[in-house]
Amino acid sequence: MDYKWNDKQYLNIYNRYKVDIEKRFKIFDRKKFPVSVYDPINYVLSIGGKRIRAILTLLACEAVGGRASIAMDAAVAIEILHNFTLVHDDIMDHAELRRGKPTVHKKWDENVAILAGDEMIAQAYHILLNTNSTRIKSILDVYTDALVQVCEGQGFDKEFETKQSVSIEDYFMMISKKTGRVIAASAEMGALVGGGSDAQVVALRKYGESLGKAFQVMDDLLDINGSTEEFGKKIGGDIQEGKKTFLLLKAIEKSKGRERKILKSIVPGSVKSENEIRQIKYIYINSGAIEAAQSEVKQSTLRANRMLGRLPESQAKSMLLWLSSQLLDRTS
Amino acid sequence: MDYKWNDKQYLNIYNRYKVDIEKRFKIFDRKKFPVSVYDPINYVLSIGGKRIRAILTLLACEAVGGRASIAMDAAVAIEILHNFTLVHDDIMDHAELRRGKPTVHKKWDENVAILAGDEMIAQAYHILLNTNSTRIKSILDVYTDALVQVCEGQGFDKEFETKQSVSIEDYFMMISKKTGRVIAASAEMGALVGGGSDAQVVALRKYGESLGKAFQVMDDLLDINGSTEEFGKKIGGDIQEGKKTFLLLKAIEKSKGRERKILKSIVPGSVKSENEIRQIKYIYINSGAIEAAQSEVKQSTLRANRMLGRLPESQAKSMLLWLSSQLLDRTS
Repeated sequence: MDYKWNDKQYLNIYNRYKVDIEKRFKIFDRKKFPVSVYDPINYVLSIGGKRIRAILTLLACEAVGGRASIAMDAAVAIEILHNFTLVHDDIMDHAELRRGKPTVHKKWDENVAILAGDEMIAQAYHILLNTNSTRIKSILDVYTDALVQVCEGQGFDKEFETKQSVSIEDYFMMISKKTGRVIAASAEMGALVGGGSDAQVVALRKYGESLGKAFQVMDDLLDINGSTEEFGKKIGGDIQEGKKTFLLLKAIEKSKGRERKILKSIVPGSVKSENEIRQIKYIYINSGAIEAAQSEVKQSTLRANRMLGRLPESQAKSMLLWLSSQLLDRTS
Repeated sequence: MDYKWNDKQYLNIYNRYKVDIEKRFKIFDRKKFPVSVYDPINYVLSIGGKRIRAILTLLACEAVGGRASIAMDAAVAIEILHNFTLVHDDIMDHAELRRGKPTVHKKWDENVAILAGDEMIAQAYHILLNTNSTRIKSILDVYTDALVQVCEGQGFDKEFETKQSVSIEDYFMMISKKTGRVIAASAEMGALVGGGSDAQVVALRKYGESLGKAFQVMDDLLDINGSTEEFGKKIGGDIQEGKKTFLLLKAIEKSKGRERKILKSIVPGSVKSENEIRQIKYIYINSGAIEAAQSEVKQSTLRANRMLGRLPESQAKSMLLWLSSQLLDRTS
């Protein structure tokens, strides 16, 4: 049987999963008190998002032969974990916008954002523990490791902002913790719940790792190439925050003289005007850093898809392949 | 066999448990990077503390017939959870001192304190998952519920600061979440790991609940009666932060006229000078609020100890009874 559809059909299926997941977030509607904790949680979970991590969990479960519904708790838990990281990272990054809406610490205050984030971790574990699987211990190990790593990744990301010499290897180590691990865990948990073989579990984890890498480099690209409206974040924000992105590190590597000096002088808060951001974007283009990033996204995506080779053909596998390819054109 | 010792002997046994637990914290010495995450975690775990929650877990395990060592991971996990709450609460409360040392957000900054706290939750789950028990699912449920509740309790605590009408029932609800649940979970998890019967598990949970209540009211008393040196926190801090403590609510209930008006006008930051704090302490004494708090501590302690009735005599049970009585005289 062939599982090939056109983009619109894939998107329809994707959106059906998305609706299912967002329905499950409604459980927080019933949790009202303390309002200073549950109002912001409801807000964060209701302002949208691609839900890509949760959908990966459901698809991975199906791709190894399980029903998506048995992975729903794990899917919701990983999506809440991801949203928790956004809430706390946005405080640390002084970000004002997320998905085109005010961040929690802007809409309320930092205390509220800290505590709402903490409660999100707690609630996510609570939901994950509903998973009915003989492999619950492994699922919790994978989930907890993702939480450990995502915090370490954020630590490195913040440290790199003020560190002079960050290599591209350092960058890949950092993003594999900050972005890759949670995406890999999403797929791995789905495979575990779905009853996948050890080889399938590993394949889906590696698929997630490569996809996560592609995803983060694409995010770096969108920070400079995207539009605030679609991306939902301020364009050039990474540059203003002094983030060591793939683009910056690659452009430093590939440029020299005055341009290199400009790039190396970027520290958090040193670049403010749109004019300066435009100038840096120009160096990114000129040095070939943008091209290198695009090639990196493509290579990682192909690597991800190759991992799916050992899975039997199915609607879910077809969806996973389509998902990666979508990455190459994403604008948000 | 009789298990009665003098205070010095009890204290020796207590300190042996404490040394064992603190040895286990050394695992973080090996985790070095990112330094901005693990340095503050090591700092928090090295500046002392009574380790009462961890020791409760070990004692509860022994009291139902288990070896303390099998509950060590659960004990360390609950102690780290407790320390995580201190790190995040101290940010929210703008506290400068903890255990007589600068708080994490003062020694480093708020970003570091947020992230170190997050990583502490992650590491605590990681350690808890090492527990070798057929009841691991129940243990995780109890632990996760404690995390859910402690965050809710902190939410209520912060909301109450600026809320005009908080009843003593509201206060007890808040502290049962903020303090009681973690202490109850400490004992309950120990009983679960140790293989206690359902009745024993419930008895030890209830022991923890009552002990937690006594513990928090005692904390409220120490805020006004203690010395900064021993208590390790600023005396009168609760009043300055506008906390709705048992003392304040009881004093409002029991006073009238000008004194009542003074108490009801306290909001976060409205009381600054030591003179004002002294004046409020005077109202607390005069209204009988201090006496009521002392009586509450005593009653809750007795209730806790009654719960131990159905446990067989043992060194651990004797220690648990001694622990509660120690509460009545604690100065830190």
